[in-house]
Amino acid sequence: MGLPDGFYVRRIEEKDFEQVTETLKVLTTVGTIAPESFGKLIKYWNEATVWDDNNDKKIMQYNAIVIVDKHTEKIAATGNIFIEKKIIHELGLCGHIEDIAVNSKYQGQGLGKLLIDELVTIGYGYGCYKIILDCDEKNVKFYEKCGFSNAGVEMQIRK
Amino acid sequence: MGLPDGFYVRRIEEKDFEQVTETLKVLTTVGTIAPESFGKLIKYWNEATVWDDNNDKKIMQYNAIVIVDKHTEKIAATGNIFIEKKIIHELGLCGHIEDIAVNSKYQGQGLGKLLIDELVTIGYGYGCYKIILDCDEKNVKFYEKCGFSNAGVEMQIRK
Repeated sequence: MGLPDGFYVRRIEEKDFEQVTETLKVLTTVGTIAPESFGKLIKYWNEATVWDDNNDKKIMQYNAIVIVDKHTEKIAATGNIFIEKKIIHELGLCGHIEDIAVNSKYQGQGLGKLLIDELVTIGYGYGCYKIILDCDEKNVKFYEKCGFSNAGVEMQIRK
Repeated sequence: MGLPDGFYVRRIEEKDFEQVTETLKVLTTVGTIAPESFGKLIKYWNEATVWDDNNDKKIMQYNAIVIVDKHTEKIAATGNIFIEKKIIHELGLCGHIEDIAVNSKYQGQGLGKLLIDELVTIGYGYGCYKIILDCDEKNVKFYEKCGFSNAGVEMQIRK
């Protein structure tokens, strides 16, 4: 299943600073970020790779993407899958989906599911044996529609 | 709170191959791993760093540690905290605690809590604004004793 006409997907770029930070505000606190620091973050995200024992593909540690409205170049949604290299599962790769946000103007068009599908495709493309994410109870049904199932409890600690 | 007499903590090393893989089997499938591949993984884990916008400390991406019995040099427990650099929370750092296992011979001595305390100390030392982990419902009480609280639902997808 691909994106509907009128949208395309690509990695986050430095020029997305204002739109991406705005989109993420629906999710949580973004705070004050200098544009130069954002640019350095994107550079780091573009350079960080995961060691691959099979040496057959370049695995990007962070895979932050945006879904873009072709007609207006507006960012409709953003999300990230970062890849963790483990010992278990024969030095397996685990994908962590993080920071999913759909711009309020673009909600109700199925873009959330398409975003998750894209991130899962990236993770499976690298050979992840599983892909996980944490969500609020109210979003469980949405992620079930995306093919996910309940796997446990998220616990957190904050300073 | 420190470790009880008779134990010390350090990063995982290449020489830990047999004991660590054995310890992790209480948790899940480990599978067949060549010792050379394990050595390469440890090298990768020791080299991977996270970009720090404040440039004031070296942040290791992976922080896999072992608790070692001083008298026998046996590995009693192992765990990892993986550091993720985000956009949200002012380019914040999130710590992901992964792959916690206590050797069955060393269970019931409070080492699990000490292991978690050590990993949390590492994460806070880097400045993580939060540290998360996923667990089975049956382990929620244990993590509450470690200072964690329920934050949501873990969802997963596997090929």
